[in-house]
Amino acid sequence: MKKIITYGTFDLFHTGHLKLLQRLKNLGDHLTVAVSTDEFNASKGKKTIIKFEDRIKIVSNIKCVDAVIAEDSWDQKEADIISNNISVFGMGSDWEGKFDDLNKYCKVVYLPRTEGISSTEIKKSLHPIDKVNINELKRALDIMSSIVEQLD
Amino acid sequence: MKKIITYGTFDLFHTGHLKLLQRLKNLGDHLTVAVSTDEFNASKGKKTIIKFEDRIKIVSNIKCVDAVIAEDSWDQKEADIISNNISVFGMGSDWEGKFDDLNKYCKVVYLPRTEGISSTEIKKSLHPIDKVNINELKRALDIMSSIVEQLD
Repeated sequence: MKKIITYGTFDLFHTGHLKLLQRLKNLGDHLTVAVSTDEFNASKGKKTIIKFEDRIKIVSNIKCVDAVIAEDSWDQKEADIISNNISVFGMGSDWEGKFDDLNKYCKVVYLPRTEGISSTEIKKSLHPIDKVNINELKRALDIMSSIVEQLD
Repeated sequence: MKKIITYGTFDLFHTGHLKLLQRLKNLGDHLTVAVSTDEFNASKGKKTIIKFEDRIKIVSNIKCVDAVIAEDSWDQKEADIISNNISVFGMGSDWEGKFDDLNKYCKVVYLPRTEGISSTEIKKSLHPIDKVNINELKRALDIMSSIVEQLD
């Protein structure tokens, strides 16, 4: 059996995530997905909308996913590959070249990401306020504050 | 085989959706999910973050879901129940009592929704601006505009 592993956050699970997981699964027979914990994300200065317990629950309930594990450190990959008998380590092409040293343990592949869909894009699309330059707003606020001070 | 059907929008798919689908599936052997189209939502004055094609793709890739169909009108349920040989029509308890007339065709159940998680809550949590009363902002803007007019 050919086993694949991938790593990710999977915040606000969307079809970009789904397509990547399906493409990875098509490389073999069994797909393990490592989902980053909230603590690990915090150590990278990253905060998700959806908490770890819910992110991993959604991923584990996707049809092409056979197993899930927690990702809580940068250096667990070697041990994960060996202990899970992994043949292919796969990531989205935004990580191109970053994990080539894992070639010692298994095949490393980078698959194209879906254009035009990402958690970040979804978050941006939610509120018109994002279309306003926040620095412009801050500048306007500063000017108004100084007027108020003069009026007081 | 005992077949269940449910209807919903499933915007920003989350664990509340997942739990409801799993509970529904546990009532029988086969779960059909009808996902509302963008046109149907528009007719109700409702707009989703995620478009229909992506919402139905995610739902159809959830392990406990056996089939998906499109929901594009209020009055398709009777025909769906009959043509799919449905035994149980199930909805979240926010719809309690609303579909009791379907009891003529199959069993109608309303299952509890998960407290504290909904697409609306997720959207609200995304931006601090939502915590500001938008009417207060508009009032402040009106006052500032009238001051600017007097200064001009």
